[in-house]
Amino acid sequence: MSTRKDFIRQSAILGASSLLLPGNTFSIEQSAMQNSLKESRWADGSRLVISISMQFEAGGEPETGFDSPFPANMEKGFTDIPAKTWFQYGYKQGIPRLLDLWDKHRIKVTSHMIGEAVKHSPELAREIVKRGHEAAAHGLNWTPQYNLSYEQEKKFISDGVAIIKEVTGETPKGYNCNWLRRSKNTLAILQELGFTYHIDDLSRDEPFLIPVNGKNLGVVPYTLRCNDIQLLEGRYFSSQQFGEQLRLEFDQLYAEGAKYRRQMSISTHDRISGTPAQVRVLDEFLAYAAKQPGVKFMRKDEIARLALQDKTTVIDQDYR
Amino acid sequence: MSTRKDFIRQSAILGASSLLLPGNTFSIEQSAMQNSLKESRWADGSRLVISISMQFEAGGEPETGFDSPFPANMEKGFTDIPAKTWFQYGYKQGIPRLLDLWDKHRIKVTSHMIGEAVKHSPELAREIVKRGHEAAAHGLNWTPQYNLSYEQEKKFISDGVAIIKEVTGETPKGYNCNWLRRSKNTLAILQELGFTYHIDDLSRDEPFLIPVNGKNLGVVPYTLRCNDIQLLEGRYFSSQQFGEQLRLEFDQLYAEGAKYRRQMSISTHDRISGTPAQVRVLDEFLAYAAKQPGVKFMRKDEIARLALQDKTTVIDQDYR
Amino acid sequence: MSTRKDFIRQSAILGASSLLLPGNTFSIEQSAMQNSLKESRWADGSRLVISISMQFEAGGEPETGFDSPFPANMEKGFTDIPAKTWFQYGYKQGIPRLLDLWDKHRIKVTSHMIGEAVKHSPELAREIVKRGHEAAAHGLNWTPQYNLSYEQEKKFISDGVAIIKEVTGETPKGYNCNWLRRSKNTLAILQELGFTYHIDDLSRDEPFLIPVNGKNLGVVPYTLRCNDIQLLEGRYFSSQQFGEQLRLEFDQLYAEGAKYRRQMSISTHDRISGTPAQVRVLDEFLAYAAKQPGVKFMRKDEIARLALQDKTTVIDQDYR
Amino acid sequence: MSTRKDFIRQSAILGASSLLLPGNTFSIEQSAMQNSLKESRWADGSRLVISISMQFEAGGEPETGFDSPFPANMEKGFTDIPAKTWFQYGYKQGIPRLLDLWDKHRIKVTSHMIGEAVKHSPELAREIVKRGHEAAAHGLNWTPQYNLSYEQEKKFISDGVAIIKEVTGETPKGYNCNWLRRSKNTLAILQELGFTYHIDDLSRDEPFLIPVNGKNLGVVPYTLRCNDIQLLEGRYFSSQQFGEQLRLEFDQLYAEGAKYRRQMSISTHDRISGTPAQVRVLDEFLAYAAKQPGVKFMRKDEIARLALQDKTTVIDQDYR
Repeated sequence: MSTRKDFIRQSAILGASSLLLPGNTFSIEQSAMQNSLKESRWADGSRLVISISMQFEAGGEPETGFDSPFPANMEKGFTDIPAKTWFQYGYKQGIPRLLDLWDKHRIKVTSHMIGEAVKHSPELAREIVKRGHEAAAHGLNWTPQYNLSYEQEKKFISDGVAIIKEVTGETPKGYNCNWLRRSKNTLAILQELGFTYHIDDLSRDEPFLIPVNGKNLGVVPYTLRCNDIQLLEGRYFSSQQFGEQLRLEFDQLYAEGAKYRRQMSISTHDRISGTPAQVRVLDEFLAYAAKQPGVKFMRKDEIARLALQDKTTVIDQDYR
Repeated sequence: MSTRKDFIRQSAILGASSLLLPGNTFSIEQSAMQNSLKESRWADGSRLVISISMQFEAGGEPETGFDSPFPANMEKGFTDIPAKTWFQYGYKQGIPRLLDLWDKHRIKVTSHMIGEAVKHSPELAREIVKRGHEAAAHGLNWTPQYNLSYEQEKKFISDGVAIIKEVTGETPKGYNCNWLRRSKNTLAILQELGFTYHIDDLSRDEPFLIPVNGKNLGVVPYTLRCNDIQLLEGRYFSSQQFGEQLRLEFDQLYAEGAKYRRQMSISTHDRISGTPAQVRVLDEFLAYAAKQPGVKFMRKDEIARLALQDKTTVIDQDYR
Repeated sequence: MSTRKDFIRQSAILGASSLLLPGNTFSIEQSAMQNSLKESRWADGSRLVISISMQFEAGGEPETGFDSPFPANMEKGFTDIPAKTWFQYGYKQGIPRLLDLWDKHRIKVTSHMIGEAVKHSPELAREIVKRGHEAAAHGLNWTPQYNLSYEQEKKFISDGVAIIKEVTGETPKGYNCNWLRRSKNTLAILQELGFTYHIDDLSRDEPFLIPVNGKNLGVVPYTLRCNDIQLLEGRYFSSQQFGEQLRLEFDQLYAEGAKYRRQMSISTHDRISGTPAQVRVLDEFLAYAAKQPGVKFMRKDEIARLALQDKTTVIDQDYR
Repeated sequence: MSTRKDFIRQSAILGASSLLLPGNTFSIEQSAMQNSLKESRWADGSRLVISISMQFEAGGEPETGFDSPFPANMEKGFTDIPAKTWFQYGYKQGIPRLLDLWDKHRIKVTSHMIGEAVKHSPELAREIVKRGHEAAAHGLNWTPQYNLSYEQEKKFISDGVAIIKEVTGETPKGYNCNWLRRSKNTLAILQELGFTYHIDDLSRDEPFLIPVNGKNLGVVPYTLRCNDIQLLEGRYFSSQQFGEQLRLEFDQLYAEGAKYRRQMSISTHDRISGTPAQVRVLDEFLAYAAKQPGVKFMRKDEIARLALQDKTTVIDQDYR
């Protein structure tokens, strides 16, 4: 909420007579509306593209102050040891179990890797890549970057990339910030460093392009709606509810796929969706989705490539 | 809770002997009880009237301090960029998708429009009206008004109305305050400005009238019970639960419709119910409801008109 | 949690050698264990007794600081008007709708009445009694009483009783404190004032007796498990979940009823369970429960009477 | 989250060039990865082992500051009496009901006993042991121990053990800390005192061993995922959701049991799972699970014994 004082100042400035002068805002939204109503298709003929993210974060969590499923009532100066074992589950059971699930359904996912987590469990990072999944970048460690200076942020991103490259041999093409929170410099830095897309956007159900430093950068939208950390840890959904949510989202997006280019995004975190109950509902969902004609599971780098090559992809000229 | 001190003062004043003197309170509630037990019907013969609100707010949110689905742990002085993209979803995907849903079921809804949101996405506002939905007012911007002076509040309401009129050509007849919170002057201002009804009331399952400045103003009750922002964002209901809630409310109100004038109120916000999972459960609900004989979907201005013309509508003489 | 210092002091006092001296605690719990394992029956031959409470509170809420379903972010000094209309729903729609539900299933319930609420809606209070329901006491107004002096508390209870008597002609036999929180004097005051039972206890699934001032007082246990304010407002259960909870509780208690005296307690608040969705699931539950042989719905004063007359009722000698 | 300052210091120290020096971390995680992918079996031929914990805590809660299902708005200096009766339910109804459930399904569970709770209800403790369940230790009283000195903690553990021994005649072999939170000394103390295992670990779905003071100690992993206090009191799951969660976890672990040694862990607290609705869903789950071939219910001391004797059990060399 803006404060009352702000509000009054605003309404004083914006007299009714001056409100509707033509301007940039209007033209932006006109194109937004047109985009929403215009029919569109995937260049490869897919009816619905599903993209799964597998967050590889455990082992990269900070020593203190991390999110944890335990009550926040410990005295300062002590380590919350059982919470540490909760994170360990992510790389000891979670990712191995998820890898088996993706193999079972023959799908390839995008793994957003925190540099420190890769450094901590290099063999696991290599296994992910070996099985055909995408190694995308997710920062050097488990901290925000929206509050860094340009140089600090560039180093933060590059250092994470360097670890992924050295351990897995892959060069990340996509980027995901901690809790999606980028700074005003992030997009320019990503363009400089050779990334082809970022995912920290919830505004559309399809990929789009944004001009950054005179060249288009892909946006492959992420999700809070089918996101295990948001639903299970943030909103206390049960796994049953998570599965129902996937099904409802899918059914609607699949129906819309007849007229519009539609992407379904699903997020799975190592320690949260690598559990038996989550893998069970994901297994059921994947079997259900795969049965519908025209459904395609894609890595996010493939989606970005398709979007960048397709002349009909929406370009958001005024993205900030 | 009143404090202990208040309580003691009260109980000292209210001796048992003086409690039951006849007075206004008693007569009010006698009529309330009588109203509740008296049979009543819709003037147009409907068995149950369902009214859907579509809140058009995204694009009108303040720059900081807005509600957001992200953790509230950002450092001051930075913009929560992904939260902004969550709002953008409201006008880029949400309202266009909802408009298609209403068309599919051939129903007309009431869109409560924040002035700044209309200014930000004028084409979308016009599209809403073009498709036959009601343009109702929802304030100049996304701020409370209960704490404004009479003059400030009158300007706040009028400025929002002016934008809607200029962009859509329609003159709003109904009003909805931010979180339903009106001031002691709101009703008089609405009467002065020519509104025919307000919705910020949860007290009944049917429309009623209140005398304001010597003339009746319609009250078309709103809802927290079938309200997406309350259930999904406030209480973390799943979309599945939202759908179940609609169904339970409908079944009971429809049954009661045989004896009483019953209105079901549903609230949908652009960025919350414009999502695939929500549209899916709304779609299922609308198909289910439309199959029952005597169910009618109405804009709130129609409901207000019916209520104002009907001599049997409840008049709440002591409404404050 | 006790603080670390307390803990150390305790463990210093309680050496292992002195721990097991015979004492009161042991004998209490031995009888508790024996009671739990001993077969028992209802004196009237019922297999399961269900007791519903209908809280009549709306209209008795304080002017400020009351619980409300709205965000707690209002500026001080303003009334939360829509929250007031949420309470009004309790007496305008809620209780009338619940009364029709009880009639439909031919059951009588216990209405815990706040004195101020009765004063505010006397006709409704009389209607409750006229339809055969029990008028029980619930304090003068909507405030805690655990923090009152003996004399203050006695007056608080008596003043509430006086209103109920004057309005309905009935003398309450049972008592319920605000959020079940009694003071150390409450039981003695209730005994003095002629009450036969209180409900502010969650320790058993059957009624029991406690000696107070040399005479037994009945305890008819209340519930948080099938309590709408706890589940819907406190834990954000959906009505669907509320219905499932009732069913699960019933099925188990009914099964146990073959061997043990079992009471199921359900709590319904005017503004919370008087809504369509809640009445719908209650309606379904009541139809289901009534079909099982040996199920009996009773007012709490009847339960207390049965318990006080039955020589096999558990007497809790060391209740404090 | 680490603070920004910490982060910058870290990233300054860890230049990309120095990140990948070979070291302990790498070798640890390589073995973790290998363990996860290696097939394994239970020595006794079971396909899936299920271990249920029954927390015996009620009666051992501190006088103030305990967790409670009531609103946290009491004035200081008063006892929350109804909350006390909520705990009493644990030993008056909860454990007796759970004991009958275990008997019905002929399964033996592990009861983690707080010393003070045993002292308060000795007959109940003896009944648990008499029915064949394991008496495991859970501290002297209901307080954290992570913040105690070595000597204090040793006494805290020993004093709890002494009560259990004196009351039940059994010597606990397993240990569980308050909210799983151990100190850096706990494991050494347990080894000294002759315990064979601890449960305060969430990192794996199978038992494993850790070298402590030159000798292996068993780790029989506990759960937050099928834990009633976490799900019902911490996340407000309904009992229905608790049952669904058990079923989903079981189905996946049972499927994996064909290739891997899998343990399912369930936690039940006296006052939370000793209620009718919880016992109902547990009853249904137990009947369902028992029907699958190769499912075995075991006490945790048996699991620890199997793990310690089995040469193929994972040994976590670098456990801290």
